[in-house]
Amino acid sequence: MSVKAKAIYTFQSENKEEISIQESEELVIFDENAVDGWFKGENSRGERGLFPASYVEIIRTRSNSNVTDCSISPAGSLGKDSSYIQSIPITPPHLQQSFDDDEDDDWDDWDDRSTVVEDADYSRSPGANGHAHQSPLSNNPNVHYRPRPHMERQDSISSSRKGSMVGRNLNRFSSFVRSGVEAFVLGDVPMMAKIAESYTIDMGPVGPLWKANPQPFACSIEDPIKQTKFKGIKTYISYRVTPSHTGRPVYRRYKHFDWLYNRLLHKFTVISVPHLPEKQATGRFEEDFIEKRKRRLVLWMNHMTSHPVLSQYEGFEHFLMCADDKQWKLGKRRAEKDELVGAHFMLTLQIPSEHQDLQDVEERVDTFKSFAKKMDDSVMQLTHVASELVRKHLGGFRKEFQRLGNAFQSISQAFMLDPPHSSDALNNAISHTGRTYENIGELFAEQPKYDLFQMLDKLSLYQGLLANFPDIIHLQKGAFAKVKESQRMTDEGKMDQDEADGIRKRCRTVGFALQAEMSHFHQQREVDFKDMMQAYLREQIAFYQRVVQQLERTLRMYDCL
Amino acid sequence: MSVKAKAIYTFQSENKEEISIQESEELVIFDENAVDGWFKGENSRGERGLFPASYVEIIRTRSNSNVTDCSISPAGSLGKDSSYIQSIPITPPHLQQSFDDDEDDDWDDWDDRSTVVEDADYSRSPGANGHAHQSPLSNNPNVHYRPRPHMERQDSISSSRKGSMVGRNLNRFSSFVRSGVEAFVLGDVPMMAKIAESYTIDMGPVGPLWKANPQPFACSIEDPIKQTKFKGIKTYISYRVTPSHTGRPVYRRYKHFDWLYNRLLHKFTVISVPHLPEKQATGRFEEDFIEKRKRRLVLWMNHMTSHPVLSQYEGFEHFLMCADDKQWKLGKRRAEKDELVGAHFMLTLQIPSEHQDLQDVEERVDTFKSFAKKMDDSVMQLTHVASELVRKHLGGFRKEFQRLGNAFQSISQAFMLDPPHSSDALNNAISHTGRTYENIGELFAEQPKYDLFQMLDKLSLYQGLLANFPDIIHLQKGAFAKVKESQRMTDEGKMDQDEADGIRKRCRTVGFALQAEMSHFHQQREVDFKDMMQAYLREQIAFYQRVVQQLERTLRMYDCL
Repeated sequence: MSVKAKAIYTFQSENKEEISIQESEELVIFDENAVDGWFKGENSRGERGLFPASYVEIIRTRSNSNVTDCSISPAGSLGKDSSYIQSIPITPPHLQQSFDDDEDDDWDDWDDRSTVVEDADYSRSPGANGHAHQSPLSNNPNVHYRPRPHMERQDSISSSRKGSMVGRNLNRFSSFVRSGVEAFVLGDVPMMAKIAESYTIDMGPVGPLWKANPQPFACSIEDPIKQTKFKGIKTYISYRVTPSHTGRPVYRRYKHFDWLYNRLLHKFTVISVPHLPEKQATGRFEEDFIEKRKRRLVLWMNHMTSHPVLSQYEGFEHFLMCADDKQWKLGKRRAEKDELVGAHFMLTLQIPSEHQDLQDVEERVDTFKSFAKKMDDSVMQLTHVASELVRKHLGGFRKEFQRLGNAFQSISQAFMLDPPHSSDALNNAISHTGRTYENIGELFAEQPKYDLFQMLDKLSLYQGLLANFPDIIHLQKGAFAKVKESQRMTDEGKMDQDEADGIRKRCRTVGFALQAEMSHFHQQREVDFKDMMQAYLREQIAFYQRVVQQLERTLRMYDCL
Repeated sequence: MSVKAKAIYTFQSENKEEISIQESEELVIFDENAVDGWFKGENSRGERGLFPASYVEIIRTRSNSNVTDCSISPAGSLGKDSSYIQSIPITPPHLQQSFDDDEDDDWDDWDDRSTVVEDADYSRSPGANGHAHQSPLSNNPNVHYRPRPHMERQDSISSSRKGSMVGRNLNRFSSFVRSGVEAFVLGDVPMMAKIAESYTIDMGPVGPLWKANPQPFACSIEDPIKQTKFKGIKTYISYRVTPSHTGRPVYRRYKHFDWLYNRLLHKFTVISVPHLPEKQATGRFEEDFIEKRKRRLVLWMNHMTSHPVLSQYEGFEHFLMCADDKQWKLGKRRAEKDELVGAHFMLTLQIPSEHQDLQDVEERVDTFKSFAKKMDDSVMQLTHVASELVRKHLGGFRKEFQRLGNAFQSISQAFMLDPPHSSDALNNAISHTGRTYENIGELFAEQPKYDLFQMLDKLSLYQGLLANFPDIIHLQKGAFAKVKESQRMTDEGKMDQDEADGIRKRCRTVGFALQAEMSHFHQQREVDFKDMMQAYLREQIAFYQRVVQQLERTLRMYDCL
């Protein structure tokens, strides 16, 4: 029986097997298992084909209504941001387990798996940027598409110590609930005997700050090299990763980054974990793609090493230093068994004693929310403009200058046709001018490599970081709502003052952490955008100077006529 | 009764009153007098409207067949050049008289007429360039459109001394016939008692050359000023024309140039008279149009003064020097009564005694013909490319840079939204970068004024000069055919050797004159294209340097952050 569904995001088809769907459009699903992560169905225009499962919600009958009831919108959602729209995880059963549950994993099996898994669209939230969704390899039914990343945050807080008196959020897809922050605020997360990690928040001049990493370092990513194994059956790209504090290179593949990324998502509530560069189903071994992925991994790594909390993560250290297969496996299992994840991570935070009025924090967060929304919009605007400029550089600009060059060449050719009256010097100069404009066309076509690509890389990083904030802000909103609820209950005599004070105290922790993360974002953005603008302007100047030099050389050919 | 016609040129409609017609398309004419110079009719696609009379030939019944028989193609026509296709002059009777027959003309009457006549498309041959044809002012049925210029060459050689034995060309629209060169070659033009003018052709290192003007001069055209008369009823533009050899300015209107131009066409057989800048029905007083016309009149004038023959013309001298109304009128009548025009002008030529083999001349001319055709094509190609570049500068380029500017501004605005974490210096720098790119957009939009417009002006002049050559080359082809015919007739004993020698001798004159004109064209083209390319490159360098300067200033704002 066919199933009805509704599109929650707009999806633009890119292959003939796919169909486009519009946000809110009604769809009929014929086959939920055609390609993993993709449904086969029909849109309202009668087109039939594949569309991504995570872009739609299935319209179930009443018996499932508590699941599909997404109308309980969490407080404080950023207007357009679609990451608040909760989709039902319709993941094939064999992928329901999270990636890291794979106990049989070893270095080689892992390789085998990820050559496939790596193909999936994973790191990107469709609402966060307008880029292409990855396409199913319809010729290869074994391609596995995994659910969208924020599902990874979906911890099950099994250790419910006691039934709290303050109501729980019914929407189990709320980031407040699934991150474990609700449980933490309500005091449902037991203090652990020993907490090995500790992250301190200091009070800075304009608000809370993460305490800097006492051993700061940088890390280079270089030299992507195509490797093969099993006599060429498996092919992958290996990057040389060299942390500055050891100086010893380790070699990592994208899937290693991906493993690390998932650990980060799992553990670091309240922190905006940078998204990994986009995945791509085809052309992964093409030079342009390898180069682009490398550039974006470098930016990702820079953001990791510059983050006071993320840079201190044990799993990250393991990723950066482990060069031994056996040790790798051990460290990997250790990281996967880390208990201080999600709700428990909140226990590792040391906050300053300064009093902060919760109302002030609320306002602070609202201001940031407006800023982040506007920044998200303008980053997207600049991304569109820059992408279009790339297209123009490669197309229109190049073509115009090449046409001009051809026309000059054609003039020169005409002038050669009446030899007794033909001046070779002039004809050569005009012909050279033609070639110069053809070269200028090529300079235009090549220029994006030197400036716009870098700009787009950085904008892409920021799109990812900004896409995380609605969920993170939502944590603070949820915590604040609990404080108000507990306040009302103590006023009505339904709750002990002690318990209410506990909730308020833990809410302060959430507020401090969020503000520290906001501060860090601002600091980093200031550095990054200054660098981005300077680099762009420098390359632009160099570009126009190259044009001037070419033209000057050409002009000199006329001077001696 | 409706009349059938056939399109001899393709015409692209530009107003809703007009219809497009394709070369060779059959048409039905409803009204030959709808607007002077325009027919009202229907094309083969059933569209009804106006199209230019001079673009079609009426299909008459058999009684007129000798007139419509255009299948006698003159020898040596340049492949595609449509000026060989002879159209029937279907001019309204009141315009059948040539412009200069107007005996009642005086300074003021002339003014009155030309404010209307000036609107017509006149100076351009439709085959020579792809530009817009002028449109009828369909709201104003009094607008007069005159026939196309080469009709002005249509002299009536009334003084037929004797019936020559060598056959006459039946096609009375052939330039060979109507220029009078046929009559000249056949010896039908009587030697006159006194020939006041004389133009010498010398033998130069690579062929015949016009002897230079012994009193060379230049002439500036400046300061187009809008004048009114009759209390503002008449408005016109007056130009200050200052010849270098007198240093005394005279003031001339476009219609004075137009009068001169018609005298030149009338008189100077074998010489490529530069076309006047295009006419325009509307917007004649708009700044851009005035500026463009001025620039093109300057180029026209430069070509006139640099031409060894044209620059010595008495009518030109009168145009350049006469500052008195009464004297103007006298000189004008004198020029109009000049007898040494057309066929008679050939009598003024002094050729060198060197022998030139007619076959060699023929080859020389054929080479030039190929060159001129290729140059015409490449000038048209460059014109199209440059026009398109102008459009891109004003549109696409400007828009792209302005969009980039806006996107930067938007980023800066986002950064201002979270004041405690906002760096004014960075925001200002980014905002300034935005304005810089908006300015660069404007620089792109303004640049054509400094380079492409000048290039298009010169290309337009050359389009006009090149468009004259097929007719001029045809003169030599016709003369050569007569020589061959007379040779055959003497071989057959049907013609005296003396008469055949006379034909051969006069054909030599035509050949020398044509070669001198070809040489002059080459000399001038070399100078003009060198100047054009240098000027273009200089302005392009200055342009890109301005862009670099703007970017450098902007980059410095980041250095002090």
